[in-house]
Amino acid sequence: MNAAMLRTPLVAAVAVASFAMSGLASAQGTDIEQRLADLEARVAAAEARADAAEARAASVEDTVDASEARLDEVARQASGEEGFSFNAYARSGLLIGEDGKSTSGSPYITPAGGLGGAVGRLGNEPDTYAEAVLNYRQTYDNGAKAHYRTMIADGVSTSNDWTADESKLNVRQVYAELSDLPSFTGAFENASIWAGKRFDRDNFDIHWLDSDFIFLAGTGGGVYDVQLADSWKANFSLYGRSFTDFDVVSDVDPNANDTDSFIYTVNNYFGNVQWMINGLSAADNDTRDLGNGAVAADSGVHTMLAYHGDSFFGLGEGNFKAALLHGQGLGAEVKGLGSDGDLTEDASATRLAVYGTTYLAPRWRIAPSVFAETSKDRYDAGDEYTWAGLNVRLANELTENFEMQYEASYQHMDLDQGPAGNVAEGSYSRYTVAPTFKPQVGGFWQRPEIRLFASYSDWDDDLNDYSADDAFGEEGFTGSEWSFGVQTEVWF
Amino acid sequence: MNAAMLRTPLVAAVAVASFAMSGLASAQGTDIEQRLADLEARVAAAEARADAAEARAASVEDTVDASEARLDEVARQASGEEGFSFNAYARSGLLIGEDGKSTSGSPYITPAGGLGGAVGRLGNEPDTYAEAVLNYRQTYDNGAKAHYRTMIADGVSTSNDWTADESKLNVRQVYAELSDLPSFTGAFENASIWAGKRFDRDNFDIHWLDSDFIFLAGTGGGVYDVQLADSWKANFSLYGRSFTDFDVVSDVDPNANDTDSFIYTVNNYFGNVQWMINGLSAADNDTRDLGNGAVAADSGVHTMLAYHGDSFFGLGEGNFKAALLHGQGLGAEVKGLGSDGDLTEDASATRLAVYGTTYLAPRWRIAPSVFAETSKDRYDAGDEYTWAGLNVRLANELTENFEMQYEASYQHMDLDQGPAGNVAEGSYSRYTVAPTFKPQVGGFWQRPEIRLFASYSDWDDDLNDYSADDAFGEEGFTGSEWSFGVQTEVWF
Amino acid sequence: MNAAMLRTPLVAAVAVASFAMSGLASAQGTDIEQRLADLEARVAAAEARADAAEARAASVEDTVDASEARLDEVARQASGEEGFSFNAYARSGLLIGEDGKSTSGSPYITPAGGLGGAVGRLGNEPDTYAEAVLNYRQTYDNGAKAHYRTMIADGVSTSNDWTADESKLNVRQVYAELSDLPSFTGAFENASIWAGKRFDRDNFDIHWLDSDFIFLAGTGGGVYDVQLADSWKANFSLYGRSFTDFDVVSDVDPNANDTDSFIYTVNNYFGNVQWMINGLSAADNDTRDLGNGAVAADSGVHTMLAYHGDSFFGLGEGNFKAALLHGQGLGAEVKGLGSDGDLTEDASATRLAVYGTTYLAPRWRIAPSVFAETSKDRYDAGDEYTWAGLNVRLANELTENFEMQYEASYQHMDLDQGPAGNVAEGSYSRYTVAPTFKPQVGGFWQRPEIRLFASYSDWDDDLNDYSADDAFGEEGFTGSEWSFGVQTEVWF
Repeated sequence: MNAAMLRTPLVAAVAVASFAMSGLASAQGTDIEQRLADLEARVAAAEARADAAEARAASVEDTVDASEARLDEVARQASGEEGFSFNAYARSGLLIGEDGKSTSGSPYITPAGGLGGAVGRLGNEPDTYAEAVLNYRQTYDNGAKAHYRTMIADGVSTSNDWTADESKLNVRQVYAELSDLPSFTGAFENASIWAGKRFDRDNFDIHWLDSDFIFLAGTGGGVYDVQLADSWKANFSLYGRSFTDFDVVSDVDPNANDTDSFIYTVNNYFGNVQWMINGLSAADNDTRDLGNGAVAADSGVHTMLAYHGDSFFGLGEGNFKAALLHGQGLGAEVKGLGSDGDLTEDASATRLAVYGTTYLAPRWRIAPSVFAETSKDRYDAGDEYTWAGLNVRLANELTENFEMQYEASYQHMDLDQGPAGNVAEGSYSRYTVAPTFKPQVGGFWQRPEIRLFASYSDWDDDLNDYSADDAFGEEGFTGSEWSFGVQTEVWF
Repeated sequence: MNAAMLRTPLVAAVAVASFAMSGLASAQGTDIEQRLADLEARVAAAEARADAAEARAASVEDTVDASEARLDEVARQASGEEGFSFNAYARSGLLIGEDGKSTSGSPYITPAGGLGGAVGRLGNEPDTYAEAVLNYRQTYDNGAKAHYRTMIADGVSTSNDWTADESKLNVRQVYAELSDLPSFTGAFENASIWAGKRFDRDNFDIHWLDSDFIFLAGTGGGVYDVQLADSWKANFSLYGRSFTDFDVVSDVDPNANDTDSFIYTVNNYFGNVQWMINGLSAADNDTRDLGNGAVAADSGVHTMLAYHGDSFFGLGEGNFKAALLHGQGLGAEVKGLGSDGDLTEDASATRLAVYGTTYLAPRWRIAPSVFAETSKDRYDAGDEYTWAGLNVRLANELTENFEMQYEASYQHMDLDQGPAGNVAEGSYSRYTVAPTFKPQVGGFWQRPEIRLFASYSDWDDDLNDYSADDAFGEEGFTGSEWSFGVQTEVWF
Repeated sequence: MNAAMLRTPLVAAVAVASFAMSGLASAQGTDIEQRLADLEARVAAAEARADAAEARAASVEDTVDASEARLDEVARQASGEEGFSFNAYARSGLLIGEDGKSTSGSPYITPAGGLGGAVGRLGNEPDTYAEAVLNYRQTYDNGAKAHYRTMIADGVSTSNDWTADESKLNVRQVYAELSDLPSFTGAFENASIWAGKRFDRDNFDIHWLDSDFIFLAGTGGGVYDVQLADSWKANFSLYGRSFTDFDVVSDVDPNANDTDSFIYTVNNYFGNVQWMINGLSAADNDTRDLGNGAVAADSGVHTMLAYHGDSFFGLGEGNFKAALLHGQGLGAEVKGLGSDGDLTEDASATRLAVYGTTYLAPRWRIAPSVFAETSKDRYDAGDEYTWAGLNVRLANELTENFEMQYEASYQHMDLDQGPAGNVAEGSYSRYTVAPTFKPQVGGFWQRPEIRLFASYSDWDDDLNDYSADDAFGEEGFTGSEWSFGVQTEVWF
């Protein structure tokens, strides 16, 4: 309040009134002041608090970001993308005949089986076969990646748990593969290289016959995914395999009963088309005594033209694969490249393999396949082997966890071992029904499966006693066979 | 300020004063205005900041929630709840005799050992035995779960590191088990199904004797935990085992020297009570030549009544298990179901197995067991075998990492191989003291342990030379034996 | 507004004015009031919001902290610091001779190889050898740690993938080691104890020769890192090994053709200096028939003085290791302690082993080694064996992923089997060039490597036919040998 304003009584009175008024205003002002000051302080505090909260949130955010980055790393380790991971294939179960004992079975059970002529496997497997794959993956500071893999595998036909006497446990793969190498550029930019003992990465199979289209495996080295042109990728490799302890024609050199089969592979991809070319050589394998006067091959050629279809033969959703294979000399074992040293130098073989998968109806899957081969001068001059088969696997998904599977398999074979050997012609057929449990139905490749099954198989009498190496014609196994069983099949 | 208020001089004066006053108030008001406006702006900003902080915190919260969910998933993988996990059992060490060489030992060392009559294992194991279990678990979108398991195992008695020549490495388990299947309802709601080669889930053992109460294993399939009534759960299974390469009575069929032993099991649980019923069959096993004129069994029955106690026989904290087993024909091998094809058709066996665990005092644990069997017409008409043993394991926990373990084992046996065989009666006793290191004392099942030990064992002379298959009576092993050693035992 | 103030008209007028004024002020005040009240409410809300944000941030922080702690735990599991982890060593490849077949090779290929005289391994390995190590680590509530390890290993020379017939798969390690035991104090505070079958923790090797300085392995138990004084740490252990199926001099006791070799070890460390002392005994090994009249040792002594250098012999960055070993009787196999039971009681051997690593220039690595031994009365009275070799591995890092490796190896040997045996003197040399791919160059120990190689080796004719156990002198392997190949080598 300003003292200079109190000049006249009136003014004074006014002033008094004013004063009173201003006192009033002032009292009110002081209160407001206070409240304002309080508010200002509170706002400052609230600002600080908001800032602190913000800072805290930001700090947590940073922690979370760091934690996320760490979690990424840990997740990579936990999932096996980095470090250790485990894969497996296994089947195990019982295959029981009408007499209440284990009975013979195998996709390779027919006389054509020894030539690679597989039939349907559903309800036709008496063994416990398991592969355990141990992987270790590393990513380096420079971005390069290394993948180490080792696989142990075993296959026995006994049902006992302790199988030390029958054990076939062995190491099937030991290799390292390097990719994303910074100093690989140009055509090699996406290439990976490998060395060691392995199954080739690009092997593929007709699952229902337990047969690969091509099975390239052994010890060696190679390079994958060389980009030769925009639509042309190729793999190059050298695989070695061992031929040992064979008899030789003239036994002058007692050490010469072993050699190596080397497979030189160029595997080309043009979109869906694959063209694989293989050269084979096995020094001195021609000194091998085949026991029938024929000369064993010491070299060979092999080629496969394949198509990897994205539909069911263009007729519907699904997939199909088709391949035509031809080999000569050591290449006449057209699937297991370089694995057969008993082939003659004139051996030739041509094989067709086709399969497809599709849904016939919402809960009905079907997977038919055709598998056929003709070969001649295979193990002796003048022999001739022809076999052809058709297999159909059908599945009806009844609940989330259960489906009925059916398989019909037919194979005709016309086998002539040549001048000194046996002859047989006839056909084999097998029908299987398999109630099957699985965690989640819905696809051709979903495993594990736990299946019960009943199979009926029959064959022409002519096929019995053709070979001492197969079960056909053995005591109590001469045709019209029922078999039953339970089995699991797993892969991941 | 309203202009209509300035009517008279007085009023004007008043108005002047009032104006002055209001000017005052107004000046004060403008300041407040400003501060208010500032405050309002600041509050708005603070609000925005708080909102931003809140939003940020919320956003971090979301990130954290997502991250937590991911961490849950990663944790499941890292812990092996999902994906790969590893289990093991192993023991390895030295068992040295007074002469400073490896000496014979085994819970099955006595003449009754071949009949399943185990004695105490502490300081009585000369081997390196290891099991490696590789598991892979998967949970599916529909909630179903799959568990794949494979086990490799090896047992050797050499102390060398490279044991390729002695190796017994083999695959003992390969199976898949499915649970939580959405389409399983009613009695099957909590059931799981399996197939493959396995040790039955519900086997249980007397650890201190290295003997299972029941050891059901082989290749087959089954279902666990079918709820038959409120207090009645049951497992059903079929296990196959292989009998091979035995001599047959009349050798008309050279292929007939193998068969399968099938075990059909119903395993019932009523609370703590277990009642297991088994039927066994092995077609044509009666053609087996037992070498003594007796007829081998081609079928059998077996049952076990067991109690799984939650206390030390009702006397204190701890647990106990007691079982009475009886079998006939192929069922007369009452532990290893279907594992013995040499049993006669008249064979019968009855076994009692009991153990318990408790703390006698705060740092004193005790685990006594009783194990006895009588069997007749087992491998020949007229044979009769009786053995009974008592074993006590005592442990005194001296520090967090060290305990003294003691074991006393006694077994009496009365063995009569029948008309054409040997007879022996006598008893075996063994006393062991084992200073034991472990990461953390405090229980019967805590491993690993690293133990030193000294054992004294003695037996009646009559037991020497009873059998060529056991060590009793071998050069330098005829009783009053001291042995010493070091060993680790591990499981997880 | 106070009614007592309205006394006179003037006052009333004033009051009216005042009232008007106060009405004004009041109107203004009411507005401010309102705004203040609004603000206060908003501030309160903002405060609450800031508080909520803060609380939320704090809560997230807590969650994040908990999550971090959990992530720590999960990370420990995912990385294998806790729970399962996997290690491996492997090599696999082809070694092809000029004739296009597998050829002989091995660091132990020379006649001195049987005595431990290794030469350079680059391009000299024909086998697939793989070790898979499965670890399981546990940390206990009391801070104690347990480490369980099992190792399976296999070595075959076939190139085939299925090697069941050739398999050497076996379990080389099974042990548990306990550390951080709370009740271990004083000299034992940092000690760890172990038992089982293992490779000793402190074995070390000359990688380029595939030879350990010392290879202590077998089954037993021991303690590591006992702190005997400030600068003196020691390990104590007992390892057993098995000698089996040997012929004995007088065959009175048919069971006496086996015994155990026990190795008692004190391994002392004084800074960089290691002094290892071993006593060996094998009861009754002196009854072994060596076939030449000499008496086999039943005891032995062995010592090794080693230096573990932190530089390249003090000449530059890098490292070096040097050891002088001497043994007598059973200790005369100076590397593989207790592994050779054919040593005579008078056998004595002295070995020198030295290697170093350094960079000669920024991208040029070098690793030279010297390896030499003289022994006498080893397997027969009067025999005398001396061998000495020099090996140099050189690598030129050309890109991030590629280096050229070179190895030159030379060994001279003067071998005299004594009165009844052969004599040979001569030298062996080998030169190898190996273009090598790896994920990231930059060190001596970085693997995996994928290498191509060409080797030339030659030796004095005198070395051919010295021994039937080595390849020298075999058909087509008599010197001037070229070999070629591809190989991977992996460890992690």
